[in-house]
Amino acid sequence: MLNLTLPTPPSPAGSYEAFVIRKGIGMVSGQFPFQDGKLKYLGQVGTDLSRDQGRSACKLAAMNLLAQISAATNSFAELDGLLRLDGTVASAADFIDQPSILDVASELMIDVLGTKGSHSRTAFAAQRLPLNASIELCVTFAVR
Amino acid sequence: MLNLTLPTPPSPAGSYEAFVIRKGIGMVSGQFPFQDGKLKYLGQVGTDLSRDQGRSACKLAAMNLLAQISAATNSFAELDGLLRLDGTVASAADFIDQPSILDVASELMIDVLGTKGSHSRTAFAAQRLPLNASIELCVTFAVR
Amino acid sequence: MLNLTLPTPPSPAGSYEAFVIRKGIGMVSGQFPFQDGKLKYLGQVGTDLSRDQGRSACKLAAMNLLAQISAATNSFAELDGLLRLDGTVASAADFIDQPSILDVASELMIDVLGTKGSHSRTAFAAQRLPLNASIELCVTFAVR
Repeated sequence: MLNLTLPTPPSPAGSYEAFVIRKGIGMVSGQFPFQDGKLKYLGQVGTDLSRDQGRSACKLAAMNLLAQISAATNSFAELDGLLRLDGTVASAADFIDQPSILDVASELMIDVLGTKGSHSRTAFAAQRLPLNASIELCVTFAVR
Repeated sequence: MLNLTLPTPPSPAGSYEAFVIRKGIGMVSGQFPFQDGKLKYLGQVGTDLSRDQGRSACKLAAMNLLAQISAATNSFAELDGLLRLDGTVASAADFIDQPSILDVASELMIDVLGTKGSHSRTAFAAQRLPLNASIELCVTFAVR
Repeated sequence: MLNLTLPTPPSPAGSYEAFVIRKGIGMVSGQFPFQDGKLKYLGQVGTDLSRDQGRSACKLAAMNLLAQISAATNSFAELDGLLRLDGTVASAADFIDQPSILDVASELMIDVLGTKGSHSRTAFAAQRLPLNASIELCVTFAVR
């Protein structure tokens, strides 16, 4: 695993928990590109943001996702492994390469978690995301 | 728990089950703001519907969600607890406060189910939803 | 079960696995209408594609989904059953009958898998999907 300093996991944006584990299955709430409490890289990839900015946004959201998984699993010690990463990219109507943006998150999971980080994935485009975020990621995982 | 009269759980809109439980995990199909068999509050929040109408729509969908969970778990007796609530709000292009709409559902889960109702959440905006519904909610839960 | 020849399961479109099973729960990555390595039926139902073309696209994606589930479960021998099918249809702004498109996938699951194929479902419309696909399907299942 990488020697990585994870951010403080962001607080939920409403009346729910950042993560819940029951019966050996954990689910993390939708994570956005928050950094130090501020939402970064607002808007759509392909209009407001370049592809590289979209990838930077995805990196931030993925770091928050890792921070939540870490908080949920005693710094990954109780993590059996990831099941699925669901990613949505706020996108211009003609931008269709969401996989290249979300690969930043997928590769980070593998780099940090090794074989525990292997996962299935869904990728979606949205015209708009809550809070005008550019990326929303969520993950399902299994615990030991 | 609240003393609440749940509606009759709506029938599926196609060739699938309202809920399925296997290996201790339950999943409810997407629920819409049906009331007495009629879909209410059609269209987008921010164009066709006000925020308050969106919240009323979300309340109806959440009541149907509870009715399905109740039907799946012998009136909640076999419910271990919720895992994740996924919510999508049909939204005007410039409406980005989906969390305030979905909080109606999140708060109802807690009010009715207590600690069993705590959940993680995803929130999404959509230009359009099936049947021109304004809200779609689904939930994953664990059983005893 | 039908006597059906399944296609070769498509390779992932990025840095992730086609499916992952942990702790008895399996999740398949988003499947698209690929046929022999080529993405078919591009664009939106209601503008680029008729309803019937949308249903043909859904059939292809569902065949790929079955191929992945088969690869994950030793030709279904280790499959306990499906939990939920999530389907998104790239749709014209005024097309709201996603259920009639996704029923093709739901009915195929039942035809091929019998009672193991019964599932809950979510249905969504999107303005655009990754790779300009018309359909994206994913599934959660339980293993013996």
